[in-house]
Amino acid sequence: MLNKKIGDFNKNDKIEGFFLIKTVDCKVTNNSITNKYMDFNLIDSTGEINAKLWECSNELEQMFKDNMVVKVRGVVNEYRGKLQLKIEKIRNATSEDNINIDDFVLSAPYKSEDMFDLILDYMEKINSKDIKGITEQIILECSEKMMHYPAAKSNHHAVRGGLLYHTTTMLKAGEKLLEVYNYLNSDLLYAGIILHDIAKIYEMDSSELGIVSQYTVEGQLLGHIVLGVNLIDRAGNAIKADKEVIMLLQHMILAHHYEPEYGSPKRPMIPEAEMLHHLDIMDARMYDMQKALSDVNEGDFSDKIYSLDNVSIYKAKLN
Amino acid sequence: MLNKKIGDFNKNDKIEGFFLIKTVDCKVTNNSITNKYMDFNLIDSTGEINAKLWECSNELEQMFKDNMVVKVRGVVNEYRGKLQLKIEKIRNATSEDNINIDDFVLSAPYKSEDMFDLILDYMEKINSKDIKGITEQIILECSEKMMHYPAAKSNHHAVRGGLLYHTTTMLKAGEKLLEVYNYLNSDLLYAGIILHDIAKIYEMDSSELGIVSQYTVEGQLLGHIVLGVNLIDRAGNAIKADKEVIMLLQHMILAHHYEPEYGSPKRPMIPEAEMLHHLDIMDARMYDMQKALSDVNEGDFSDKIYSLDNVSIYKAKLN
Amino acid sequence: MLNKKIGDFNKNDKIEGFFLIKTVDCKVTNNSITNKYMDFNLIDSTGEINAKLWECSNELEQMFKDNMVVKVRGVVNEYRGKLQLKIEKIRNATSEDNINIDDFVLSAPYKSEDMFDLILDYMEKINSKDIKGITEQIILECSEKMMHYPAAKSNHHAVRGGLLYHTTTMLKAGEKLLEVYNYLNSDLLYAGIILHDIAKIYEMDSSELGIVSQYTVEGQLLGHIVLGVNLIDRAGNAIKADKEVIMLLQHMILAHHYEPEYGSPKRPMIPEAEMLHHLDIMDARMYDMQKALSDVNEGDFSDKIYSLDNVSIYKAKLN
Amino acid sequence: MLNKKIGDFNKNDKIEGFFLIKTVDCKVTNNSITNKYMDFNLIDSTGEINAKLWECSNELEQMFKDNMVVKVRGVVNEYRGKLQLKIEKIRNATSEDNINIDDFVLSAPYKSEDMFDLILDYMEKINSKDIKGITEQIILECSEKMMHYPAAKSNHHAVRGGLLYHTTTMLKAGEKLLEVYNYLNSDLLYAGIILHDIAKIYEMDSSELGIVSQYTVEGQLLGHIVLGVNLIDRAGNAIKADKEVIMLLQHMILAHHYEPEYGSPKRPMIPEAEMLHHLDIMDARMYDMQKALSDVNEGDFSDKIYSLDNVSIYKAKLN
Amino acid sequence: MLNKKIGDFNKNDKIEGFFLIKTVDCKVTNNSITNKYMDFNLIDSTGEINAKLWECSNELEQMFKDNMVVKVRGVVNEYRGKLQLKIEKIRNATSEDNINIDDFVLSAPYKSEDMFDLILDYMEKINSKDIKGITEQIILECSEKMMHYPAAKSNHHAVRGGLLYHTTTMLKAGEKLLEVYNYLNSDLLYAGIILHDIAKIYEMDSSELGIVSQYTVEGQLLGHIVLGVNLIDRAGNAIKADKEVIMLLQHMILAHHYEPEYGSPKRPMIPEAEMLHHLDIMDARMYDMQKALSDVNEGDFSDKIYSLDNVSIYKAKLN
Amino acid sequence: MLNKKIGDFNKNDKIEGFFLIKTVDCKVTNNSITNKYMDFNLIDSTGEINAKLWECSNELEQMFKDNMVVKVRGVVNEYRGKLQLKIEKIRNATSEDNINIDDFVLSAPYKSEDMFDLILDYMEKINSKDIKGITEQIILECSEKMMHYPAAKSNHHAVRGGLLYHTTTMLKAGEKLLEVYNYLNSDLLYAGIILHDIAKIYEMDSSELGIVSQYTVEGQLLGHIVLGVNLIDRAGNAIKADKEVIMLLQHMILAHHYEPEYGSPKRPMIPEAEMLHHLDIMDARMYDMQKALSDVNEGDFSDKIYSLDNVSIYKAKLN
Repeated sequence: MLNKKIGDFNKNDKIEGFFLIKTVDCKVTNNSITNKYMDFNLIDSTGEINAKLWECSNELEQMFKDNMVVKVRGVVNEYRGKLQLKIEKIRNATSEDNINIDDFVLSAPYKSEDMFDLILDYMEKINSKDIKGITEQIILECSEKMMHYPAAKSNHHAVRGGLLYHTTTMLKAGEKLLEVYNYLNSDLLYAGIILHDIAKIYEMDSSELGIVSQYTVEGQLLGHIVLGVNLIDRAGNAIKADKEVIMLLQHMILAHHYEPEYGSPKRPMIPEAEMLHHLDIMDARMYDMQKALSDVNEGDFSDKIYSLDNVSIYKAKLN
Repeated sequence: MLNKKIGDFNKNDKIEGFFLIKTVDCKVTNNSITNKYMDFNLIDSTGEINAKLWECSNELEQMFKDNMVVKVRGVVNEYRGKLQLKIEKIRNATSEDNINIDDFVLSAPYKSEDMFDLILDYMEKINSKDIKGITEQIILECSEKMMHYPAAKSNHHAVRGGLLYHTTTMLKAGEKLLEVYNYLNSDLLYAGIILHDIAKIYEMDSSELGIVSQYTVEGQLLGHIVLGVNLIDRAGNAIKADKEVIMLLQHMILAHHYEPEYGSPKRPMIPEAEMLHHLDIMDARMYDMQKALSDVNEGDFSDKIYSLDNVSIYKAKLN
Repeated sequence: MLNKKIGDFNKNDKIEGFFLIKTVDCKVTNNSITNKYMDFNLIDSTGEINAKLWECSNELEQMFKDNMVVKVRGVVNEYRGKLQLKIEKIRNATSEDNINIDDFVLSAPYKSEDMFDLILDYMEKINSKDIKGITEQIILECSEKMMHYPAAKSNHHAVRGGLLYHTTTMLKAGEKLLEVYNYLNSDLLYAGIILHDIAKIYEMDSSELGIVSQYTVEGQLLGHIVLGVNLIDRAGNAIKADKEVIMLLQHMILAHHYEPEYGSPKRPMIPEAEMLHHLDIMDARMYDMQKALSDVNEGDFSDKIYSLDNVSIYKAKLN
Repeated sequence: MLNKKIGDFNKNDKIEGFFLIKTVDCKVTNNSITNKYMDFNLIDSTGEINAKLWECSNELEQMFKDNMVVKVRGVVNEYRGKLQLKIEKIRNATSEDNINIDDFVLSAPYKSEDMFDLILDYMEKINSKDIKGITEQIILECSEKMMHYPAAKSNHHAVRGGLLYHTTTMLKAGEKLLEVYNYLNSDLLYAGIILHDIAKIYEMDSSELGIVSQYTVEGQLLGHIVLGVNLIDRAGNAIKADKEVIMLLQHMILAHHYEPEYGSPKRPMIPEAEMLHHLDIMDARMYDMQKALSDVNEGDFSDKIYSLDNVSIYKAKLN
Repeated sequence: MLNKKIGDFNKNDKIEGFFLIKTVDCKVTNNSITNKYMDFNLIDSTGEINAKLWECSNELEQMFKDNMVVKVRGVVNEYRGKLQLKIEKIRNATSEDNINIDDFVLSAPYKSEDMFDLILDYMEKINSKDIKGITEQIILECSEKMMHYPAAKSNHHAVRGGLLYHTTTMLKAGEKLLEVYNYLNSDLLYAGIILHDIAKIYEMDSSELGIVSQYTVEGQLLGHIVLGVNLIDRAGNAIKADKEVIMLLQHMILAHHYEPEYGSPKRPMIPEAEMLHHLDIMDARMYDMQKALSDVNEGDFSDKIYSLDNVSIYKAKLN
Repeated sequence: MLNKKIGDFNKNDKIEGFFLIKTVDCKVTNNSITNKYMDFNLIDSTGEINAKLWECSNELEQMFKDNMVVKVRGVVNEYRGKLQLKIEKIRNATSEDNINIDDFVLSAPYKSEDMFDLILDYMEKINSKDIKGITEQIILECSEKMMHYPAAKSNHHAVRGGLLYHTTTMLKAGEKLLEVYNYLNSDLLYAGIILHDIAKIYEMDSSELGIVSQYTVEGQLLGHIVLGVNLIDRAGNAIKADKEVIMLLQHMILAHHYEPEYGSPKRPMIPEAEMLHHLDIMDARMYDMQKALSDVNEGDFSDKIYSLDNVSIYKAKLN
């Protein structure tokens, strides 16, 4: 009986340990004999695995809910090329188990408080009163949720604190590139980076564990780009900011996906909007590439990655 | 010497009459002998013609400006398949000429005041206090400019009062279709029609003659769809409207072009938004088809019409 | 034991009732122990459900065939997010069960006879002898099959009488819009509406229950648009109609899908063809939207609808 | 004064000779001094050149018409990278000039009579009575026009007899490939080749010189593919051919452009239709490539060729 | 107990015979009771079938490996519309079974040695010393692997010797078409055909049975087109060939897929490259069509064929 | 008479000064009276202007050739919205004029020698012997031409030394981003940057002034991406480099345009190739944006920029 993290599971391991229930469902098999089973997606800080308990009852359904921590014993099988856990024993964690919730969720590699402070540092570097004012107004309103929101439901930076991680990495990269492309307006660029995805907080419903259960109604009908434009409109009018400043920040948010079919009705028309777009896509892709290669051996390819145009990524031997 | 309207000009006509200068420019010919000439686009209520005065001087440049009415004598030639006027004599109109500006611009077939009243009539049919309130708030703010704005710079309804004409025709057609598709919410549909293009007033600069000289800066950086979403956000918050009402109206504006590449980052997700899209495109195309056929003889084709996917329209003999 | 219609089934219901077999098959499970089971798709006038009988034999295979009515007892399960019926008992309906076949199929909301009469009424409004003659000739030939054919295999109006329902709704909407766009030729528009999908009768094989089992060979090799063009060619020549009339009606059929990739090799070149296209797509989409929302609660979204560009439709609370 | 053919003209040549007027127009220059000039497109059997006569009058306009042969003296200039003839003297040819019209038009490299006979030979090879009957019926009806029609207005095989040339080359290539892909039905393939473009005779108006002045009304509203389908429908019904034979031939015509956006609403579903498509596109492109290279020196590139996806063709030195 | 080839299996057959293991895997069922089973894909020279052995153990896993021949007894079932073999008894073939490996793989209809000799024959027809030298150099290097490589992993010509079969059919067809398009350089065309897919030998890993297990690393990172260009570069430099010859052959390989999205960064710019493209796509499609129709009855359609733009192919009755 | 640089010309200026002839041609006007004129494109270090000398003779044609410096007197006109110079007097520069050729060409803002040294510095930072060896081998071969080559014919960095400028800016930006994305292999990234466009030296013919007259034959038939792959193949084999190193560098060159339709048959499959793509496109676009805004006043828009997806760039007032 091994006490392993999910990321270390191998086929045929017999394991025992604590995991967080990401989702749980009672399902029917397409099969004449056994009617029902419980279907779990379990996670810890190292990964996620599907797990089956081959029975189901009203009591079991009541006992296990999303976001609970459970103690599980079982065997690791492989099903359609993916590892899967066959549960032999399962119970809820109790206070005596001394569980720390942070051990069970995928998180950004930095503490949320530190990343948030970094954002405040960059906001201090903004000289324009209006640009700084709009940014502060919006960040203030969103600060609590920013602490745990991921940057996406399932693609890049879909981890607890992922929105902060994506934003701060872009700020660091942006600061570097301002040394090379020094004619850019750093106020606009920093504010654009900080605000570009902020409305994801209104577009998605995320638990405090950074797990998105669904998109909100306004997220579906309007999307985070237009919601962000609305936020800037309100903040800008509230502090009576210069009209051009409001318009430029709105344009940067509007244009940051670049292509209409990815949600940007306008392409970048100022250099800072262009740079914002490159920083955004570069950081998202580098994240996905790094993640794709984390499980791959040298000389091998990853699975096809949907967010990378369905390409398989290769881990060179010379690295 | 003929006293004809532009729409009646034929090749080789010698004409004399009053016209409005839509644009005027001093240009250089690609030619060794004559350096400069004045290039006019003249209009009256029946059409538009390019005209050349084969000389140019500082005095002439000062004398003739956009939107002035001039008296012209000249000969109608044909250049690259288009009629063109060679100006022999030109002078500004004076008060003694008894000019009525309305004779010189292409206008919608109804009076602006009547069309605006019709919009007010439909607003009266809106039962929801919030939907009506938002619509009134915005229309009030825009009413003056609505009187003369066209619905586009050069495509459909690009005439004085064209925005009103497009809007009121859609309201009439919408009312009819509500009898067939009677499960639709008429409040949303009427408000959506009235507001869908209203922000064109901020997207384009139009003279009182309904002639658009250029797009505004915010028109280019944000576009009338996002500007319209902002208008609804402000009006909705100003009257403290229900959040869902604001969101639904914003969604309708956002989705009315249907395709991302035509500026809609979201496709219609409520039936009223879907219907709004069909009313909009149907009215724009029927207008362009009717206009294309107005100069065509039975059994002939129009030129290729850019806004109709570059198709030539055929005028059937049996009509 | 509940006596419910399919549209009212809930998970875990134990139900008993009469249903129509849409399809039935003997299948093998991917499983070592039980080899075979019978896989049914059952329908009644409110919907469709997949059902399993976990045994199969030559006698059972002989006993149950497509389009039979059966009495079933079973339990409603959920499999991959869809309801599924586990059959405990099943037998064929007998004459003593007093079955009325109309209770078991999804049908248009109007009687076929009434809808067909409405089409005849509109044909009466056609003034041109040739246009009327061609339309009559074709309708006469197809009238029997029109009574039950759906308008599609699985998308919009895929119900018994769906072709009549789609056609008559378009005629009503067309009549309304002729009041607004009054320069259109109503003869062409009415005939175009009546004939635009008529060749679906030759494109698909439908049972009298309005269920399409497959496309015909000529349906696949030529498609209903070209088959319809052929019908007009023959009818027009049979009554020695004016050449232009034949050509215009053929053009309207040819162009009514608008885009080449949807089967129209020519785009609309006469206003009546343009209007026909809008009436067609508008009616198809409004039907699909209404259907999508029929099962959705206020404040919720439908599934993604394939025929609506994979959009989820939202049911507003204010409705 | 040189007596050269158009294909041999060089810049600055002073030439004199007989040419055919392809088009002639009286035009106005964009210029203050000279109002009018006559704009000719002159051809002979080796090529085409634009020519200017720098004056124009009613008499001149009456004197020179399309399809007349004229004697011209002038100088060869270059304008925007193209040779252009400045006309110094021009008169109509008279009977005393002993003009043979065949010297003035671009023609296929074989005599029309011989190519037509070749088609008859291949028709003889068709074994199926129905396939042969339909083909004969249609060819009989079109034989006169086939003698001079080009295969296109301006792209491939746009020469006198071009339709015959394209068809017979495809027949020869098809016969060769039947030796390799010997499971194909040669009856279908020969008939498909002979009929695939036959309705171009109804789609375009061509003079007896093989010069297309315009598309016909039915050519624009229906296109040669659908017109060809109609022809087969009528011929097939006239000889009471087997229904499948009619359908297969119609399918081959329908599918021969392969892509919907090039006019084929169905893709090939039988191997003979697939082969027909390849023979068609291969022959069209090889023709255009050969033509493009005819004026190019070894080691040089042709202009960009529109019909070859805007590629410039290279003439290798090793040839 | 029947002794049938896979191509002759029918549902419910009880069969016994020898088959080759294409792939074998130990899998877990999504099911509470039976944990594991062995999943085989078995082939013989007539086809392929999925087979299940409803048990699995370490010994069984050791006993059966890819590319082994086994003797199997079982029953043919149907699962999701496909035949599937339920294995009742299975053992490895022994030397006493007198197995001939050629009986178990799908092969081209000609012997590899004969097809290779045919390629040598065509190489003899190449007059240019440089073109012949480059071709020989490369063929020499690849000759061993050419004997068994297929032309693709799963699409056209995916059989043992498929690369030779595809290449030699194209050579035959090319020779025929050179009689019609006789201005083409036959040296370039023959060399282009022989070399166009040769680098597939480096792009894919194939067993001697012609079964591709995977793409190589360089196959994925560079692709057979660029690998082929490299081969020509090296061979050309090794024999000090004329620079233009090297470039033209490289261009032909580079352009033979025609469209950038299919891997050709350049479109054909010489007629021989254009012809190579047509020969390639025509042969691939005719192969796939013939294969699709091999299992279809007259009057029926094949499944949708992915490589034929998802079209179903129709087998005409008149064939 | 003003002594201005081209970048400072205004309409109606009378100017006199020295300029370099980029191109010169003798042309014919489409005009009855004056037959010929000389058409110049003149440049100096600040820009380019079209100029006309309204006469032409054999002597004049002999006197003025591309890349000569001339002294010109003339008047600045405007033609179709562009400034144009009407030449009144023109003569060749003589040795007494003390011309320095560097004053007449648009050059990168750094000296070529310094930029080349910077590349050598970065090459020193490459640790891998093989990667460094391949890079050195190629740079050595190209160093002379690198001194003056632009990075493109007409788009981004189309100035003397533009290739060095583009490469060195990317190296600087790459070094910065390696601090943020520190898991990247810096050897691969630096070598990839240095080599990614190096084969433009073989793709285009450039004068020593950095002006590209045309693409080379191999540039058109193969393109700089494939030419670069060939260079790496040869250099790698020459120094017997590790096979994977050769392959990875070839893959980076192959994938750096990302999209197949822009010339990359493979998308990036290693993180360094992905980063190379972003550095490339980011630098090209920032260059074009900066250039577009250099002539624009605050609050105004640039012309539509082809290389920026036809967007007009806005110069904000707050900058």
